[in-house]
Amino acid sequence: MLNFLKDHRSVRKYTHQRIDDVLLNELLATACRASTTGNMQLYSIVVTTDDDVKKQLSPCHFNQPSITQAPVVLTFCADFNRFEKWCRQRKAEPGYDNFQSFFTAAIDALLAAQNFCIAAESQGLGICYFGTTTYLTQQIIDVLNLPKKVVPITTVTVGYPESESPKADRLPLEAIVHENVYKDYSAADIDRIYAEKESLPENLKFIEINNKETLAQIFTDIRYNKENNETFSTSFLEAIRKQGY
Amino acid sequence: MLNFLKDHRSVRKYTHQRIDDVLLNELLATACRASTTGNMQLYSIVVTTDDDVKKQLSPCHFNQPSITQAPVVLTFCADFNRFEKWCRQRKAEPGYDNFQSFFTAAIDALLAAQNFCIAAESQGLGICYFGTTTYLTQQIIDVLNLPKKVVPITTVTVGYPESESPKADRLPLEAIVHENVYKDYSAADIDRIYAEKESLPENLKFIEINNKETLAQIFTDIRYNKENNETFSTSFLEAIRKQGY
Repeated sequence: MLNFLKDHRSVRKYTHQRIDDVLLNELLATACRASTTGNMQLYSIVVTTDDDVKKQLSPCHFNQPSITQAPVVLTFCADFNRFEKWCRQRKAEPGYDNFQSFFTAAIDALLAAQNFCIAAESQGLGICYFGTTTYLTQQIIDVLNLPKKVVPITTVTVGYPESESPKADRLPLEAIVHENVYKDYSAADIDRIYAEKESLPENLKFIEINNKETLAQIFTDIRYNKENNETFSTSFLEAIRKQGY
Repeated sequence: MLNFLKDHRSVRKYTHQRIDDVLLNELLATACRASTTGNMQLYSIVVTTDDDVKKQLSPCHFNQPSITQAPVVLTFCADFNRFEKWCRQRKAEPGYDNFQSFFTAAIDALLAAQNFCIAAESQGLGICYFGTTTYLTQQIIDVLNLPKKVVPITTVTVGYPESESPKADRLPLEAIVHENVYKDYSAADIDRIYAEKESLPENLKFIEINNKETLAQIFTDIRYNKENNETFSTSFLEAIRKQGY
């Protein structure tokens, strides 16, 4: 089981094989067994298989091809809509129009998403997460008809892998784990922790093709640059507020 | 495997048996195989086993007994500190002092947390999540010495279960899953979806002991009331900003 979990890799290309409905429902039911705050299940899962809806979702994820290519696209949403409707039908006044409630629901959605992914992988399927869900959030809200109190948090594509995907590197465990309390990193720690990543041939190639001096510059100047982060901070916060939090 | 995942239950009471260091490290390494944005691994895991630090953490979680009783307490943190230090040592100027970056790191932390929990459960351990991590956040930051750009997102206690815990109910799958796009709930949908939960003997008993009219009122008036949600929204947002996002 640990070996299975350790063998995770993101799968971005899928065969044409569709996912059997019975299996998909089993996986979704398994996702819903994840821990959830106060057993409120503050999330919804939008399961998109229709080609037309996938095409509409595609630009929301910067036209990454797997959105239209995958047989199933799942959008995991923070959802207080269902819970509030229940409260109002039961003489209870909800007080969930705030950031804490949004964040609680987002946690619920993410734990369910990861449970789904592990369940899917255990059945021979491949998955990939799309961080773009928190970029063009309002567009996704519009495409999926999300009502107030529903905010998309992450997107997962699922399907049968077309080929074996490479396994990504990870930092050594000492980089991530702190004993009892946090121990901040010295300059020497940072050098040691990132040494292996920096020496990988594919990363050295990235630096070369992008005409950069260091791997870190690929992240700060290209992949996750300040301007985009700030633009998408504003639009994500606006979408969260517009949805009623 | 699906049956194993479906059998999850929260475990709040643990035996005195400690967790072997080799096993704990294996579980932490497995947690780190979870998907992560751009393979940046924007999280840290603070592993608290020291009784004194656990005692300091206890009031941050409203003195829930499992914090001091569990052999291991894990605090999963959104962490751009390590990544920024690396950038600065590599002539790269980080632009991660914003909400989008915080949220990205929080997603990373939560996927790793859920991977850890599944790994732990597969080895006979029991876990419980603490949503309180986003309530008294600043206090946790102080106890764990978290530097700027590190924010605690969720806490997990781990240990060998003292006894069999009950399995929580879940809403029917139709409550959670939407086909292609979101289909909002009618009043009849809400009645049907919540019927089973409302009829459970333990929930009927909750209503009675708390002198309430409906189960929903237990949530809105007691467990997750507006006043607390608003107080903890303010304090959580303040802590996030103070940590540099």
